Formats: sequence, structure tokens, C-alpha cells
Amino acid sequence: MDSDLTLQPQSLVSMLRSIAAGEQTAEQWINACFDRIEAREEAVGAWQHRLTRDEYLTRYHAQQDFFTTSVLKGLPVGIKDIIDTKEMPTEMGSSIHQGRIPSDDATCVELIKKAGGMILGKTVTTEFAYFKAGKTGNPVDTERTPGGSSSGSAAAVADNMVPVSVGSQTAASVIRPAAYCGTIGYVASRGELSLRGGQPLAQSLDSLGLYGREVADIQLLRSVLLRQATPENWQSTLNASELKRVLVCDGSLVGDVSIDMQEALASLAEKLEKQGVAIERLGQTEQVRQLVRCHEQIMAWEVCRNLAYESQFPEQLSEPLQALLANGLAMERSEYLNALRQVQELGGWLNQALAQVDVILTPAAPGIAPLKTDGTGSPHMSRPWQVLGLPTVTIPGLSDQAGLPLGLQLVGQAHDDDMLLAHASWVLNTVMTK
Amino acid sequence: MDSDLTLQPQSLVSMLRSIAAGEQTAEQWINACFDRIEAREEAVGAWQHRLTRDEYLTRYHAQQDFFTTSVLKGLPVGIKDIIDTKEMPTEMGSSIHQGRIPSDDATCVELIKKAGGMILGKTVTTEFAYFKAGKTGNPVDTERTPGGSSSGSAAAVADNMVPVSVGSQTAASVIRPAAYCGTIGYVASRGELSLRGGQPLAQSLDSLGLYGREVADIQLLRSVLLRQATPENWQSTLNASELKRVLVCDGSLVGDVSIDMQEALASLAEKLEKQGVAIERLGQTEQVRQLVRCHEQIMAWEVCRNLAYESQFPEQLSEPLQALLANGLAMERSEYLNALRQVQELGGWLNQALAQVDVILTPAAPGIAPLKTDGTGSPHMSRPWQVLGLPTVTIPGLSDQAGLPLGLQLVGQAHDDDMLLAHASWVLNTVMTK
Repeated sequence: MDSDLTLQPQSLVSMLRSIAAGEQTAEQWINACFDRIEAREEAVGAWQHRLTRDEYLTRYHAQQDFFTTSVLKGLPVGIKDIIDTKEMPTEMGSSIHQGRIPSDDATCVELIKKAGGMILGKTVTTEFAYFKAGKTGNPVDTERTPGGSSSGSAAAVADNMVPVSVGSQTAASVIRPAAYCGTIGYVASRGELSLRGGQPLAQSLDSLGLYGREVADIQLLRSVLLRQATPENWQSTLNASELKRVLVCDGSLVGDVSIDMQEALASLAEKLEKQGVAIERLGQTEQVRQLVRCHEQIMAWEVCRNLAYESQFPEQLSEPLQALLANGLAMERSEYLNALRQVQELGGWLNQALAQVDVILTPAAPGIAPLKTDGTGSPHMSRPWQVLGLPTVTIPGLSDQAGLPLGLQLVGQAHDDDMLLAHASWVLNTVMTK
Repeated sequence: MDSDLTLQPQSLVSMLRSIAAGEQTAEQWINACFDRIEAREEAVGAWQHRLTRDEYLTRYHAQQDFFTTSVLKGLPVGIKDIIDTKEMPTEMGSSIHQGRIPSDDATCVELIKKAGGMILGKTVTTEFAYFKAGKTGNPVDTERTPGGSSSGSAAAVADNMVPVSVGSQTAASVIRPAAYCGTIGYVASRGELSLRGGQPLAQSLDSLGLYGREVADIQLLRSVLLRQATPENWQSTLNASELKRVLVCDGSLVGDVSIDMQEALASLAEKLEKQGVAIERLGQTEQVRQLVRCHEQIMAWEVCRNLAYESQFPEQLSEPLQALLANGLAMERSEYLNALRQVQELGGWLNQALAQVDVILTPAAPGIAPLKTDGTGSPHMSRPWQVLGLPTVTIPGLSDQAGLPLGLQLVGQAHDDDMLLAHASWVLNTVMTK
């Protein structure tokens, strides 16, 4: 057992490969995750509810035969606490739903369980996946925010407590936390992955998201959620693909951005160019900013209607959420319709630009993670792509002089998620290592 | 009380107007609905679960002050049993979920309750809103199907058991039952109305739907679901608007259609022309049929993933659903992506055609309601519009020689639902009465 206590959790695919090779057992990896949680959870606060080591291992042993022959071997997964789980509370970061036990597992939870993943716990979300932060600190510097709303999902993976986790994004809720914590976050094309049992915030904007320590982790979890992974075939989904043409969207086209972040973007663009990738630059400012505004309007209109139940308890809602609900209720319907129409038109323009290249490269956040006292950071860097329902993935690995992560993101064409992840894999494993 | 027993339930807005005028009380209308249910439910079978008259009136009296000052005055509403209600089971038409009590009300249920509507009960749905019929008979001829999947919601309104009800549509689940039962069904533009708490079948195809006895009922219920109706302003939402230009899509462009239905379509087109409406005709066959095929493929792919939990209990699933799940699992991802891409392209073509006219007029079903022994009828007449997320509304009032309903439908531009309903109101109240 001594060796277990010094085993460092790795990526999901590394764990699975070591199990397949007989080097470690699933139980050793599970114990390594719990070692990490026990050492770090007090400082990081990634978990809203979770199994203890004993509870986990008891369940694992009770079904060990199933896990041994499964894709995910009983390894642990974190689930954002906005996604329903019938064996643990789902409280959505709000006292309104304290102790709420949903009647069903969300489909993504069900699919992970069927593939032999075990739900270690529910990760902290901001209040209804909007702005008000939970307890989580950034693993890199716990005085700083991990970003929101999938705060705990990002922090748990970044801090090696679990190899993979599930989040959701309406504005920047997966990409920004990944950027701040220095891990890999992926947002699926809208409609790609079932949101059944995920509590919706804004139906025209919500997407499921995943976190992993390697792109391969995300590729595998994605294929589980598409019911495509089997114990025999899963390695075949882990592809990398060389980029040929990249469209760079300068952060300043979207909104405020730090000088450090601009330098990080320039630095990756330069690395890509050195690998022979053709770099083009998006010129239009107005269209991108218009997408940001459309996103804000659609979100206000829809959130106010989705949270009809919760809006009856204003004293239990944060001020920013109350303000969003009031905005949505005061909005003229014509503003909402106008925003939807503009998105349609601007989507045509952007998709044409995207069709000429492999991906868009752009900042994943305005800069490094702010201090916790300053909130969870601004979501504007994700709004243009999210309002169009495009798949995105963060590229970690760059940092400022103090070592704080500066995440970039790649944006792909709608439903071309497999290719986007293959490109991200190439960038992370080939370009960033040089 | 004697007069109550002969009071015939009317449309929602008629009831509300008579309450406002002091002619009848809400309680009289509630009793009239229960009179109807008690007389007819054994033959029609619209309800999966429902309150008894005593239970309903006890709850009504307990909150009578609230109801008196509310928009909907405590009048009864039916909710399709695929939509979660925390005070009644939601079983989705499947023995897998027998006795399932959800942890929360769906948002549409919450909004109706907040506006003073009372949930009288849960209406019969086909198995998971797919094909396998429940017990419901068509009120016009109980040997015939009411159509599916919102079978009970359509039958309950058509049979005057409740003035309005909520359904959902993935293929033809609102429009076809309305057509078969001779009532008014409306499918909202995709994303218009919150589906939180509605169990999804296929995320790219699901829409919320409403039934009413008048278009005005639907306009009012829609404004409740958009949080726009108040006790003071609700009558201002009940608009009618004259049609100027109509694009007729012959049923044969979509698929098989009966001669009776073709005559019904021709007859309404003629009536419209007499009112000075310009009639144009859609010429393309191949595009419309391609939309039908795309719908089928997207549905198979997505249903198989959404019903991940249920697919573990094949012995409790009907053969048609098992076949759909198997198809979805066997499909190549490229087929799904191809269907999504084609929908995008064909949507551009159809939206251009729609932009030149006010609405499309087309059959709502292939013909009259089949016998129950022959299933719930074919959904193909709705697939092209549903796959594009367009709002639709049935136009009842025509029938075959035996008096069986032949429903037509109007199709509007995405998110132009208010204008679509205003046009439907004009057709039903001005054109159909001549």
C-alpha cells in the first residue's frame, strides 16, 4: 500500500493504459485520486458532495466484475452540480434547492455509469451556472477564482483529484475555468450531446462540456457519451490531426483583454507558423462585438423564463442574478427576436470565414484568473462562439511571469467536434512541446 | 347546482370572459369540466393521472383568493405525461417509469401554476412520445386513434374536458392529434418556450406545444409561458391578422395523402382565394422529401442517446421503439452529420420561399384518423417543418363525408409565432365561418 500513497493521478487514458498493461490496478488509481482529494480538498473546495474513499471502494468492489470488463474500469468522474444525479443531491449552487435529490440521473451520468465510470461526486457550480461563486479556489493559487460556472469540475481535474469531469456552458462556463486553472475544457457543438437531466439555463445557448488532463481523455469521454466507445475500440477514437490554416481572432476584437493574454496569443500563433501553419487574421470588430451583445440579450430573455420557479424566492438569489432576471422580464420581445435574427445573419458570415480555415484561435479568457474577491471573471471571450453553438476547446500551457495560466481556445465548425479535438491534440502534443 | 350540471365547457377565453362579466364563477366552469370528464372519460381515456373533483375543489378553495386575482382564475389545464409534475407521477407512457414522481415541476407547469392555472391531471402520452399508443380513443369516434404522441392532451381538449392542455412535438406529436381530433394544436418555434422538465426525445427536434378550443386560448397560454400575461393585459394578446399571400404545399409533395385530404386542402385554398388571398404553390418535391428523410435520421440518432437509461430494459420497450434505438445505434455518425448539413441548406431554401408569403398551408396529417388497431397514423406531414424548427398550427373544421376531421396546418417563419397565431385566428374566425 505504500506505493499507492505516492502514486500521482494521471490522465484518464494513461490510467487505462497502465491498467491494461498490468502496471497498476484501477483500485490503485482510485486510491491515488482519494489521496489527492484528502490532501487538497480543504484548500481547493472543488466538491459540493462526494463519496468517501470507503463508500467508493465498497461500491467498486460490489461490482468489480462489471468494472473490470468495462471501458472506464471504475475510475472516478466528477459531475457539475447543475446536472442531476439520483444518488446524490443536485443543488445547482443555490440554497433554494438545498438537499434536492432528483428522481433520475441525467443521460450523461447514465452513459458514464454504463461505460464503467463511477461518479465520485458533484462539483461546485456557481449559483444556477450564472455568476455567484461557490467555495472553490483555483488550484494554482487558491486566493484566485477557478472561474465559473463549472468551477469545481475544472478545479478537480486541474488538481488531479479526478481525471475527467462534466460541466456545462451557457456563456463561458467551461472554457474560462479551464483557462484559469490551466486544464483542458471542451464545449460540444450545441445539440451534440444529450442535455437530458442537465438543468437548463438558456435553451438556445446551453451546451454540455467536458474536462480532461489530455485531449485524449476528452475524446474518450465524448465517445462514451455518443455510445460509441467499447472496451475493444476506444483507443481508435484518440486521433491527432495537423493544422494547416488558422484564423486568429485578436482578443481586442471581442472585448477587453490583458497585454499578457495578447502576448500569449501572439506566441502560440508564432509557434504554429514555425510548424508551417498558415495564419490569417479576422479583421471585423463590429460583427464579433455584435455577437457578444446578442448573446447577452438572448441569455437574459431565456434565463428569466427558465428560472420561473426560482424567481419566486428573490431573497435567496444573488443580486447579479436578480438583475439578470429583471432585465429579461423588462426586455421587449422585439429585442430578443432581433438578437436571434442577427445571430442567424452573423452566423452565415462567420461560418463562411471558418470554412476557409481549420479553426479559429482566440483567447479563452481576458487574462489570468482574478482574485476570488473580484468574482469569477468576465465571460465575453466565449460569447461569440457560444451564441453560434460552435464547439470549442482550451489550449493550456502558457502562463504569465508569475506562472498563472493564460488559456487560449480553438473554435471549430458546428458538429465538427471530432476534427476540432484532433487539431487540439496536435497543437498540445506537437506544437506546445516545442 | 342544477345549472352547473348542464353547463357545457367552452374555450378558455370564453370562460374567463364570463367570469369577468359575473355571468359564471370559476367553480361553475371547473364543475362543468368534471361533469364532462365523468361522463366521457371511460370512453375516451384521456387521463393517465388526475385529481378527483373533490381534490381539485379542495385545493381551489384553499387558495381561492390567489385564484380570484390571477390570470387563469383556477381553471383546469392538462399536462402531457412526458412533462414533469412534482405532485403527480410522470411515467412517460412506459412501465419503466411506473409511479415515478419527479423532484420538480417543469417550467411550463410552474408558469401555468403561477398564472393561476390548476393542473387537473396528466394526459396520456404514447411510450416516450414515440409510436406505441396508450389507452386514449378519438373523441369523435373512440374506435379511432386520437393520434400521438400527445394523445390525451388533444383528446381532453377536443372532448371539452379541459379548455387547454400542454403537449410536445418531436415529429408530429401535437399537430397530428389536433388534426385527428378536430381541435387546435400549436407547436412553438424551437427554443421559444422552455422545455426544462420536459423529458427530451431528440434535442434537435423537440418543441413544446399547446392545445386550445380557440386560437385565443393558445395566444393566452403562450403569453403565460412567456411571462407576459397579467390579469390586466391578457386580452391585448388575442390578435387576428388577415392573410395576404399563402404558399400551398400539396400533401403529395411530402408523402402519401388521401384524396379527401387533398380535397380539404383545395377547399380551404379556394375559400382563401375568395377572400382575396393570393395563393402560390410550392413546386419542389425532392427538397421536401429530403427534409422528411433528414428528420427521420436525426431522430433515430438522438433518441438512441437520450434514452440511454431506458435502453437497458428492452423487454419493457415496444418493438417499434426498439427498432428505432437499434437504428440509431447502428447509424454512422456521417449520416447524422449529413442530415444536419442538409437541413441547414434546405432551411435556407425554404426560409427564402417563406419570406415571400405569410404562411405555408399544407395537410396536418395524411387523412382521417386511422382505427386504433392500425396505430397512431403516420407523422410524415409534420416532419419537414419540425426538422426546421418552424412554428405550426392546425386549422380544424373540415371533415370527410362521415364527419371525421381533416386537419390542415399553417407553417410560419421561425420565432414569428405571434403572427402565425394571428393569421390562424383570422382563418378560423373569418374564412372558415363563411
